[in-house]
Amino acid sequence: MTFAEKLAVVVKKTGSLLCIGLDPDVSKLPGAIAKLEDPQYEFNKAIIDATADLVCTYKPNSAFYESQGASGITQLKKTCDYLRENHPEIPILLDYKRGDIGNTNEHYARFAFEYLQADAVTISPYMGYEANKPFIDYHDKGIMVLCRTSNPGGGEFQDLVSKDQKLYQTVAKNVAQKWNTYKNCHLVMGATYPEELAWARKTVGDNMLFLVPGSITQGGVVEQTVKAGVNTKGDGLIINFSREIIFAADDENFAQAARHKALALSNEINSYR
Amino acid sequence: MTFAEKLAVVVKKTGSLLCIGLDPDVSKLPGAIAKLEDPQYEFNKAIIDATADLVCTYKPNSAFYESQGASGITQLKKTCDYLRENHPEIPILLDYKRGDIGNTNEHYARFAFEYLQADAVTISPYMGYEANKPFIDYHDKGIMVLCRTSNPGGGEFQDLVSKDQKLYQTVAKNVAQKWNTYKNCHLVMGATYPEELAWARKTVGDNMLFLVPGSITQGGVVEQTVKAGVNTKGDGLIINFSREIIFAADDENFAQAARHKALALSNEINSYR
Repeated sequence: MTFAEKLAVVVKKTGSLLCIGLDPDVSKLPGAIAKLEDPQYEFNKAIIDATADLVCTYKPNSAFYESQGASGITQLKKTCDYLRENHPEIPILLDYKRGDIGNTNEHYARFAFEYLQADAVTISPYMGYEANKPFIDYHDKGIMVLCRTSNPGGGEFQDLVSKDQKLYQTVAKNVAQKWNTYKNCHLVMGATYPEELAWARKTVGDNMLFLVPGSITQGGVVEQTVKAGVNTKGDGLIINFSREIIFAADDENFAQAARHKALALSNEINSYR
Repeated sequence: MTFAEKLAVVVKKTGSLLCIGLDPDVSKLPGAIAKLEDPQYEFNKAIIDATADLVCTYKPNSAFYESQGASGITQLKKTCDYLRENHPEIPILLDYKRGDIGNTNEHYARFAFEYLQADAVTISPYMGYEANKPFIDYHDKGIMVLCRTSNPGGGEFQDLVSKDQKLYQTVAKNVAQKWNTYKNCHLVMGATYPEELAWARKTVGDNMLFLVPGSITQGGVVEQTVKAGVNTKGDGLIINFSREIIFAADDENFAQAARHKALALSNEINSYR
């Protein structure tokens, strides 16, 4: 089963397009959790137990584990193992934005797909298709290519115009038309720019997924994101929230607070589909 | 002392612009080493012991450790510790090509600069200066920004022309003129295109370093690379070789074979300065 097929099964079951980012910044963990031996893993486990019926995928962000060194990598691995054993239907999207020459990418792919057994990854397009082939060659895995990012300075290069289209538009078209032989390539599209999300959906059609990170709850962004990004079937989006959910409370009730916030966001997303 | 200053001291001492890539692919380690408890670390230690007087820096490539999971990260850490304890004068350049939003990059920077205590890193420009500021804010560390890469498909996006200059040229100019407030930004420039290396040197001047990976020994590439890339003082280049040196032999004489190859390459590089 491919990543997209696995995702579709969960979306059907939970009715949710919500992705929860497992970014367990150790400086923000509740005191009782911070004292445990594997605090990131224990925190993730509690979040997963409280929210697994409300999501379509979980997205651990590799950076938050790497900053803890080998212990963090062990906790990331334990988190993925826990998800696979207890919720085998929910795909794991490893957010690590790698991108190097092919020979090196083979090793990054092994980290994601063999060691962690993730179902999908985020990668950077800068070195081109030829370099990123080792990721794409895992036909059943989802390859989410950075396209338009939502950070304030994301346009520095992404908005450069060449042959009447911006760099991110060339990335979107190349990925859709040239990279996607195995139909396993998808895009990372920031939520800050609904008109760009709408352009991308119109351009690449129904079958590519958009991972939408950096969602914020103010100012109608959820509504605009959903309306601009869904395909003609009302899905095709993976809408990520991290801090807003996992750190909704910083006391012993954090998991229930996360559930409460996740339910509210999933419902809000669905109200615009 | 900044990365560039630390590098200059070693270049003066060893007379070498050679960087050895510590990419200990476990499938290629000599049999006697592969049996040890920390084979990547033991292999690196032997390579370092045999070559430390012939290099200006070592460049571990994170991917080759990540593919081994938490054990690989431990061995990467032990390699950096070994280098710092035994050769504190030699800077460590962590090749990991990260690039995400600022909040995430803070954690990638911690992995490199606090956990591993590396002196420099490679990063991806795609998300722009604003996202990469957490790396640059470590003023004493070297930030090597991917510019023109040497892989066959590197031009897919890097050669797109906007306002009369290619994307990699805009990256080079922006990094030199806008990102480099603390004079700690440098460029990754592939060796395959000497005319592009020459353009970059002419454009950014004497003070930015070029990390030149993907060097090959055939067809006069070393000569062309050195002649095109050095600054007016005859340095400013970090020329990396990985497999050609560390896997020069696959038997118990691998470290001496590596030394022999490193010496030949360092001498070849110097003959064109």
